[in-house]
Amino acid sequence: MVGSEVLEESGEKISKKEASSLSLEEDESFSSNYGDVTTNELQLAVEGKELTDVSNLVEEIVGSEVSIRGRVHKNRLVGTKLFVILRESGFTVQCVVEETRVGANMIKFVKQLSRESVVELIGVVSHPKKPLTGTTQQKNVLPRRSLLNLPLVVEDAARSESDIEKSGKDGKPAARVLQDTRLNNRVLDIRTPANQAIFRIQCQVQIDIMICHYPNRVLEIHTPKLMAGSSEGGSAVFRLDYKGQPACLAQSPQLHKQMAICGDMRRVFEVGPVFRAEDSFTHRHLCEFVGLDVEMEIRMHYSEIMDLVGELFPFIFTKIEERCPKELESVKKQYPFQSLKFLPQTLRLTFAEGIQMLKEAGEEVDPLGDLNTESERKLGQLVLEKYKTEFYMLHRYPLAVRPFYTMPYENDSNYSNSFDVFIRGEEIMSGAQRIHDPELLEKRARECCIDVKTISTYIDAFRYGAPPHGGFGVGLERVVMLLCALNNIRKTSLFPRDSQRLTP
Amino acid sequence: MVGSEVLEESGEKISKKEASSLSLEEDESFSSNYGDVTTNELQLAVEGKELTDVSNLVEEIVGSEVSIRGRVHKNRLVGTKLFVILRESGFTVQCVVEETRVGANMIKFVKQLSRESVVELIGVVSHPKKPLTGTTQQKNVLPRRSLLNLPLVVEDAARSESDIEKSGKDGKPAARVLQDTRLNNRVLDIRTPANQAIFRIQCQVQIDIMICHYPNRVLEIHTPKLMAGSSEGGSAVFRLDYKGQPACLAQSPQLHKQMAICGDMRRVFEVGPVFRAEDSFTHRHLCEFVGLDVEMEIRMHYSEIMDLVGELFPFIFTKIEERCPKELESVKKQYPFQSLKFLPQTLRLTFAEGIQMLKEAGEEVDPLGDLNTESERKLGQLVLEKYKTEFYMLHRYPLAVRPFYTMPYENDSNYSNSFDVFIRGEEIMSGAQRIHDPELLEKRARECCIDVKTISTYIDAFRYGAPPHGGFGVGLERVVMLLCALNNIRKTSLFPRDSQRLTP
Repeated sequence: MVGSEVLEESGEKISKKEASSLSLEEDESFSSNYGDVTTNELQLAVEGKELTDVSNLVEEIVGSEVSIRGRVHKNRLVGTKLFVILRESGFTVQCVVEETRVGANMIKFVKQLSRESVVELIGVVSHPKKPLTGTTQQKNVLPRRSLLNLPLVVEDAARSESDIEKSGKDGKPAARVLQDTRLNNRVLDIRTPANQAIFRIQCQVQIDIMICHYPNRVLEIHTPKLMAGSSEGGSAVFRLDYKGQPACLAQSPQLHKQMAICGDMRRVFEVGPVFRAEDSFTHRHLCEFVGLDVEMEIRMHYSEIMDLVGELFPFIFTKIEERCPKELESVKKQYPFQSLKFLPQTLRLTFAEGIQMLKEAGEEVDPLGDLNTESERKLGQLVLEKYKTEFYMLHRYPLAVRPFYTMPYENDSNYSNSFDVFIRGEEIMSGAQRIHDPELLEKRARECCIDVKTISTYIDAFRYGAPPHGGFGVGLERVVMLLCALNNIRKTSLFPRDSQRLTP
Repeated sequence: MVGSEVLEESGEKISKKEASSLSLEEDESFSSNYGDVTTNELQLAVEGKELTDVSNLVEEIVGSEVSIRGRVHKNRLVGTKLFVILRESGFTVQCVVEETRVGANMIKFVKQLSRESVVELIGVVSHPKKPLTGTTQQKNVLPRRSLLNLPLVVEDAARSESDIEKSGKDGKPAARVLQDTRLNNRVLDIRTPANQAIFRIQCQVQIDIMICHYPNRVLEIHTPKLMAGSSEGGSAVFRLDYKGQPACLAQSPQLHKQMAICGDMRRVFEVGPVFRAEDSFTHRHLCEFVGLDVEMEIRMHYSEIMDLVGELFPFIFTKIEERCPKELESVKKQYPFQSLKFLPQTLRLTFAEGIQMLKEAGEEVDPLGDLNTESERKLGQLVLEKYKTEFYMLHRYPLAVRPFYTMPYENDSNYSNSFDVFIRGEEIMSGAQRIHDPELLEKRARECCIDVKTISTYIDAFRYGAPPHGGFGVGLERVVMLLCALNNIRKTSLFPRDSQRLTP
């Protein structure tokens, strides 16, 4: 049961295949059957042998000969037997190589394989407690050997904080892989079960968005990321030269998704990169992230936008629980968290109600200013206590803290037809009704000290008749981060870009 | 039947609602009920009246009072009656405003409404042949008036080439809207039925990709568009300053999708912008387009990649015919085309076979060079004649014409494990097995005169053990363009970017 011991040691959430192991043998006449693959056509392909997934090495096929491919998770020599744990898609199998059967040369070859090398082999599936049976053919080829000295060991990268502390107690502190080491070597880091799970969850979020949008006839569009002006008139913009013209990268699809509505597309959404030349290095900001943007015609009232948010997110949360239970487990094993508390009917509070709750709790807040991160978190706690939800909306924000294109509230121009959405006390989304009247838009731009000439393309889009409309934008990485209560947005970005990182 | 005449004149593919029209009346005491909406909360919302879609103005609701919103498609005065054609989501309704009922002031207001203005009104649905019935309430509010002089008229932009010629015969040539006028005023241009359809078809292509990938466990990922080096070592790259570091925009997700495979993600796909600083101005090149990229582990042979392509595209073609029949009709009405001929089992020819076919047809082609556009088109014709398909793959391309990271063909290093895919004689896609051995990769880079230092991040990704893998990339705009046999890629890009265009 060597394999089983090894796995417990590692602390990884890897499904164990205790029922089976593989035995490899070598007749010296087959010595050419192991070694690095020097050719590009695969050895196994030539012989027409289908690969079996490690997850399919079940009790029923004990005694069969199979070909498998996986990474060397670890190996160790016990007497004349070499035990190699091979990992594939989160599953592992123990491969037993016996010197008495395969000869010293093959033992030597297998022993020096570095961790993470990709190995293909043919062997017979056997129960580890039973004596190993012989094989008719033996093979162990190496499509790609990994470096001998790895910058990080996947086993270490997969260890939870509590396991690191536990192993510390008996004098042998386990290695902790730091964030920069992980990100510098992301190709190794994303092999951990938690990371594999995070990106499956992220993909599921996108699938659920499409499933929810489809019956609502929300059209997926793609807007250009190369723009002639600055999309929000801010400073955090990446500038470049476009064939001799000054250009910049879109800080949001705001202009173009609104133009799509003016083009009578009714309801549109986009999933695409958003670029912000952020200077600050925080746990929740990236210089490039995946924006999920929606824009829609308003028929009666801007609450229709909040209705869509209120339908979309509980749907996503529910589907993730249903379709990714194993993935959620994998994340929790390394980064423990409580499942998100949310109501089937999403709670909506006005900004003024939120301010009132904070005041009653003794917080000092400006009723017409923005909430800072601390106030948002505090309000999240108060809402959770009172309403038992970690997902809610705050709407009718003060006009002064919103972008110039936000529609003012008709009955009180201190406020606006806008909202923010919070998960676990952190803002994940902003939304609003937009001004569709070019004259009002120009007036508001001037009031916000924006040079109207620089945004003339934006304003002109509304001169050919624009229906009332609004929308919202949210970062995919932030949704997954807060869904899984992760402490850093870099954990949910495959190859993060921040003020200090442009590689790999 | 004024409405009906008007529609025939326009030549647009707009569903006619001949069964219904709306009558508006005015009691002078309600004169405040028409005019520009000066407030931002919608008038109708205040009164809690739900909007009815124009498509829902059917025989059954004749006699009912409804609120509708639409654009002024055209209007004309006949005697004391004003006929306004209101357009909404490709449907139109004739609204009848009678001076004897609403008074001179309202007639005056409605008459001066410019085309494309967005109008809301309340009226009673009636059959145009029957006498009009009275209303209990009358209203005509204007959320957004359009400019009086429009740069293009949607009716003109929607006219097919044959209709332009037809109208030309009787001495009144109809207006032809030129491409630059369309693209400069895209917000108006995308209101045509053909354009509305093109972007619905494009969205359906994406939905079908996801539906096809989901059971195959192909994971959607997002890779960074901001890179520290040049992704393919070419010159057509947009450069920028990233916080003091030289950076560029990704010319493809090649590096990162391969890194995802090295990170054990098995099969990944990405839908995202691709940036190419193209100098040439052609019918099929853009400086920014939507890339559909797939990368996958190869189990046995690189033909597995072609298997996926062979499954995916016939699926897309079939689903588009099934789910977008109206949209295809709308496109055909303006830009006539024959439905794509394709086989359920996609045809695969080797490059050598393709060369042979061209030679037999008397074409002079270099057997180890690339095919030029003309040869590709010629081969497309030959394949169509011989195999009755306009969709096929050509594989085992000469190594010399493929990127350095393409896996050479083991049995003949003049060739490579790569393929191109064609629709209607035009290349839409390139795919290949990639070199997963860093030493071979370095060797091939040097042979292709690429400075290995500049691509070290790329090569290093394979040093921690890489499985055999490959993939393909295709442009979404090009797929839709060729599916609908359109003559210019700008027709399938919502806001195209080319060597001369960076706006709107």
